[in-house]
Amino acid sequence: MSSLQLATVALDHAAVFVFAATGALAAAERRHDLVTFGFFAAITGVGGGTLRDLLIGAPVFWIHRPAYLITCLAAALTIWIFGGGRRREQLLIWLDALGLSAYAVFGAAKALSFDVGPLPAIVMGVMTATVGGILRDVIAQHPSVLLRREVYVTAALAGATTFVLLTGLGLAVLPAGLAGFCAAFGVRSGAIVFGWTLPGFRPKA
Amino acid sequence: MSSLQLATVALDHAAVFVFAATGALAAAERRHDLVTFGFFAAITGVGGGTLRDLLIGAPVFWIHRPAYLITCLAAALTIWIFGGGRRREQLLIWLDALGLSAYAVFGAAKALSFDVGPLPAIVMGVMTATVGGILRDVIAQHPSVLLRREVYVTAALAGATTFVLLTGLGLAVLPAGLAGFCAAFGVRSGAIVFGWTLPGFRPKA
Amino acid sequence: MSSLQLATVALDHAAVFVFAATGALAAAERRHDLVTFGFFAAITGVGGGTLRDLLIGAPVFWIHRPAYLITCLAAALTIWIFGGGRRREQLLIWLDALGLSAYAVFGAAKALSFDVGPLPAIVMGVMTATVGGILRDVIAQHPSVLLRREVYVTAALAGATTFVLLTGLGLAVLPAGLAGFCAAFGVRSGAIVFGWTLPGFRPKA
Repeated sequence: MSSLQLATVALDHAAVFVFAATGALAAAERRHDLVTFGFFAAITGVGGGTLRDLLIGAPVFWIHRPAYLITCLAAALTIWIFGGGRRREQLLIWLDALGLSAYAVFGAAKALSFDVGPLPAIVMGVMTATVGGILRDVIAQHPSVLLRREVYVTAALAGATTFVLLTGLGLAVLPAGLAGFCAAFGVRSGAIVFGWTLPGFRPKA
Repeated sequence: MSSLQLATVALDHAAVFVFAATGALAAAERRHDLVTFGFFAAITGVGGGTLRDLLIGAPVFWIHRPAYLITCLAAALTIWIFGGGRRREQLLIWLDALGLSAYAVFGAAKALSFDVGPLPAIVMGVMTATVGGILRDVIAQHPSVLLRREVYVTAALAGATTFVLLTGLGLAVLPAGLAGFCAAFGVRSGAIVFGWTLPGFRPKA
Repeated sequence: MSSLQLATVALDHAAVFVFAATGALAAAERRHDLVTFGFFAAITGVGGGTLRDLLIGAPVFWIHRPAYLITCLAAALTIWIFGGGRRREQLLIWLDALGLSAYAVFGAAKALSFDVGPLPAIVMGVMTATVGGILRDVIAQHPSVLLRREVYVTAALAGATTFVLLTGLGLAVLPAGLAGFCAAFGVRSGAIVFGWTLPGFRPKA
C-alpha cells in the first residue's frame, strides 16, 4: 500500500466514525430507537464518501469492506451509551467539524488518486465534506447547517484547496493532508467559537 | 434464467408497482395533475432500486428495461382512476409495507448476486427498502415515515437479515426470500396495527 | 466531433449556466456569502446532468472537464455582481425555464447516444431537467417548484417527447432539438404567463 492509499484509508475511517456519530446524535435529539440510530449513523457516515466514489467512478468504498459499516454501528452504539446530557449539541458541532475537515482533504486526495484535475478535486473535497451533514439534516428534518451564517462550506474549501495546492507544489501527501486538515478545522473552529462569517450578499438598490 | 434471477425480477416488479402507487397516492393527497402523478410514481417506484444498483455497480435496472417504467405509469393511472375516498391514507401505509418487505429481501438478494458480503447486503436491503419512501416524503414535503415512532427501518432490517442468514445457512433463494418477506411484513404489520415501537433513546441525567 | 456531440456540449454548457444562476439566486434570497453562492450554483448547475450520467453509466461530465465548474462559478459571480433588485424572483423563474427546456432535450439526447430506448430516454430528459431545481429547492429549503399547480414537469415531458419522437422519425438532431426546446419552453412560458395548469386529481365521493 502506498502512503497515499494508507493515508486515505485511515482518514476515511476517522471521518466515517465522526460523521456517523453526528448522525446518531441527530437521532438522539429525537429519542429514536437503536435501529434508527444505526440507520442515521450509516447514512451520515458513508453518505459523503459514497457520493464521491460514484462521481469519480470508483467502486463505492464500503460495499466490499464491511469494516466501514461496523465503524458506523460502533459510533451509533457509542452515542446510545454515552451520548446523553446537555453537551450533546456542542459535541455534534465539533464532531461535525472534525468530519468536515477530514473529508475535505480525503475527498480531494481520493479524487487526485483517480486522475481528477485540481479544480474538480477541490470541488470533490468540498462536496463530499458537506454532503454527509446535508443528508443527515434532510432526513432528520433538522435546520440545515448550510443555511446558517457562520462559514461552513468555506472551511471545507480552505482545507481542500490547501491540500490540492500543496501536493501540486510537490509536497508529500501526509504533510499536505495535515496542513489541509488544519486549514479546514481552523476556519471551522473560528466560525464555531467566534462566529466568523463572510460578508453576505447585498442586493443593489 | 436461474431461480435467483427469476425471483429477483418478479419481486422487483412487484416492489416497483406498490412503491409507485404510494408515490401516486402522495400526489393524490395534494391533488396534483396526471403528469405529476407519473413523476412521483416513477421516482418512488424506482428510487430505491436505482440507489441499490448504483451502489453495487450494477447497470441501473430500468434504463434498458422500459417495462419497469410502464409498471410505474400503470400504478399512477390506477391510483388516478381508483384512488379516491377516505381509505387512501390507509392504502398508502399498507402498500408501503408491501414494497418495504419486497425490497428488503430483493435489495439483499441482488447485492448477494453481485458478490457483496453478508453485512453490506443486509444494509443494502434496508437502505433500498426505505429510500423510495424517503424520496417520496422529501419531494412531497410529507412528514417522513422515518421520524415516526413505530418501527419501520427495523422491519426492513428483520426481513433482510432473515433472508441473508437463511441463504447463508444453505436454504434455497425462494423459501429464504419468502421467509424474509414474511419477517419484514410481520414486523411492519405489528407496527401499523398495534403501534409496536422499540425503546427510544433516553439521555442520561 | 459529430453534430450530435457538438450539440450536446453546447446545450450542456448553456443549461449548466442558467441552472447555476438559479442556484445563485436562491442563495441571494437568503443573503448568503460568495462561497455559498458558488456551492449552490455548482449543485444546481451540474446536479441534473450528474444524475443523468450516473443513471446511464456515462462518466460524470464535469469530473474530467473543469470548464463546467468554471461556468458555474461564472454564473455565481454574475449573480453576485448584478443579481440584486426586485426583478430577482422573475429572473429566477425564467432562467429556470430555459434550463428546464435545454436539459429536457439534452438529457434525452445524451441518453439516446448511449443506446437507451425511447421511453427511458424521455424519462431521462424529464428527470434530469427537473432534478437541478429540486436539489436547489431542497438545500435552500425553498418551497419546491414541484408542489406548485402550474405545469412544470409537463413542460419537460413535452420537450423530451418531441425530441425523441422527431429523431425517431428520422429528423436530424439539431432541428429536432430546437423543436423540443421550443415545445418545452412554450409550455413552461404559458404556465408562467397565463398560469396554465392541468386538471388536478379529484377524489371520488
